[in-house]
Amino acid sequence: MRKNLTCFLLAGLAPFLIGSGEAAAPRTPDEVVKAAPAGEWTRIAASDLLVMDLAPDGKGRARRVVIQLLPAPISQGWTGNIRRLVAARWFDEIAVVRTQDNYVVQWGDPQGEVPGKAKPLPAGIATVPESDYRTAASAAMRAAVSLRRDRGRRAPSSPLGADAYAAQTGFLAGWPVGLEGTDLWPLHCYGAVGVGRNLAPDTGTGAELYAVIGQAPRQLDRNIAVVGRVIAGMEHLSSLPRGTGKLGFYETAAERTPILSVRLGSEVAGLPAYEYLSTRSASFAAYVASRANRKDAFYVVPAGGVDICNAPVPIRAR
Amino acid sequence: MRKNLTCFLLAGLAPFLIGSGEAAAPRTPDEVVKAAPAGEWTRIAASDLLVMDLAPDGKGRARRVVIQLLPAPISQGWTGNIRRLVAARWFDEIAVVRTQDNYVVQWGDPQGEVPGKAKPLPAGIATVPESDYRTAASAAMRAAVSLRRDRGRRAPSSPLGADAYAAQTGFLAGWPVGLEGTDLWPLHCYGAVGVGRNLAPDTGTGAELYAVIGQAPRQLDRNIAVVGRVIAGMEHLSSLPRGTGKLGFYETAAERTPILSVRLGSEVAGLPAYEYLSTRSASFAAYVASRANRKDAFYVVPAGGVDICNAPVPIRAR
Repeated sequence: MRKNLTCFLLAGLAPFLIGSGEAAAPRTPDEVVKAAPAGEWTRIAASDLLVMDLAPDGKGRARRVVIQLLPAPISQGWTGNIRRLVAARWFDEIAVVRTQDNYVVQWGDPQGEVPGKAKPLPAGIATVPESDYRTAASAAMRAAVSLRRDRGRRAPSSPLGADAYAAQTGFLAGWPVGLEGTDLWPLHCYGAVGVGRNLAPDTGTGAELYAVIGQAPRQLDRNIAVVGRVIAGMEHLSSLPRGTGKLGFYETAAERTPILSVRLGSEVAGLPAYEYLSTRSASFAAYVASRANRKDAFYVVPAGGVDICNAPVPIRAR
Repeated sequence: MRKNLTCFLLAGLAPFLIGSGEAAAPRTPDEVVKAAPAGEWTRIAASDLLVMDLAPDGKGRARRVVIQLLPAPISQGWTGNIRRLVAARWFDEIAVVRTQDNYVVQWGDPQGEVPGKAKPLPAGIATVPESDYRTAASAAMRAAVSLRRDRGRRAPSSPLGADAYAAQTGFLAGWPVGLEGTDLWPLHCYGAVGVGRNLAPDTGTGAELYAVIGQAPRQLDRNIAVVGRVIAGMEHLSSLPRGTGKLGFYETAAERTPILSVRLGSEVAGLPAYEYLSTRSASFAAYVASRANRKDAFYVVPAGGVDICNAPVPIRAR
């Protein structure tokens, strides 16, 4: 049975035959990404990264999580708030307070509800309006969305499958987005980082954050601010013990994972350079098409489409 | 900020106002499920459950995982194999050998690749053909699929959103299914349990199993056998440390989680009675509609549709 097990996994490694007399075997998504030329990779500025160091695990091993902040032109005022909070070292010594299975890991001030003990926010935190869950996209911005899938089209030009939530979906500036009319918004896919908030019309500040650790909770799109995504160390969040309190909250302080510090990438020595595969590149289009039509040695029936959250934008550390 | 955090989570608990002079507030999915009458719940036979006891965790706490086997008429020969393996106690003393983030946890015989050490399979294990990844559904079976969504319809009668993978989706016998022509198949949603296999046309036996712990890998539909789903103790699988080997395999024996035993539910004393909300019931339809149109105090923009894997069939223990 070990054979079965191994092959189930090695299916992603089927040979990529080119330049031979035989018909080329279909490339796997991984093979497409590995073959992408250097010019198709886009560097993520270190100043757009958050480096969050959790307390070491039970065996003393470091746990570093790297988050990419949502870039302009999609980002809104919450990312400015988060930069202010980092500058003020506000996130240092807060904790992971909640892990709900198939939903989110959330971190914030564990003392926030204790009268007189809540950690004061730094000056300059903006109140962002609900309208900013969406960006009013110019015609040029909408035209820049690649692999755009219109749910209503019977013969789609994009390898993306039909979407359950948005009239149109596609990729902009390395990010999965939804569109409707002139509205454009980032999607809650696995690893997305968003802003916890109070009941509407409260929109949160950015001091309370969560990361998606399960099936994409796309019902949150346009209802909560997405501000980034985890690009390294996701396993340090997704494998945390689930909280046993209501909605996955930890019931005791001992169960919470302390956050030692959060810094901008530009403040951290020795950080790798992170790059994403340009979502306007030929290789990215081929990667999504491969994900939509798995035909390598392992697959029997290609689906002919892929959920946009099942085509994560490839990111690498150099 | 604790206030923000709490309210973000309590959003699911907005009051369900009925019988008053005011307009009723939209019900949350949880409220719909809690209000479902007893007659809408269907008992799962204990003989259709697998009870998998993992070795206790680092703090000595028991870890029990309960899996519901796929029911007739959707199930195929693999579930028969699994029953034979349980009867032969074949699963006892195997281990979790792989945990790949946002994909699967997999268990099997860690010695399977060591010559002469592989655990022999019991007699009577069937070789199931690839055609059985799908069921040839009668007209009556297709008609029994509830909340059926046809991707091509512009004015869908189902609250399910458009699907990226299947021409039609819906629910049958408490299970999310896809349809195309007369083919019907179970979906790889979060918690689905499937059969590891070698390269096609191998179809696996059922001795190597995996559970989905991330975004639904729907590209596996019709390519691997789904045989069940985790209905309790999912957190014991999803929070396992991710393997650091290729594809999430554990690199040392010490990292693997031993499986103490796997029994049918009918062999286990004191097991709760598990029930699912009938997928043909009015409450289930209202539940999916609520998931598709979140309009309670927390939500600003209802999506108008929900991914079928984001409308998990409610299951309760009595």
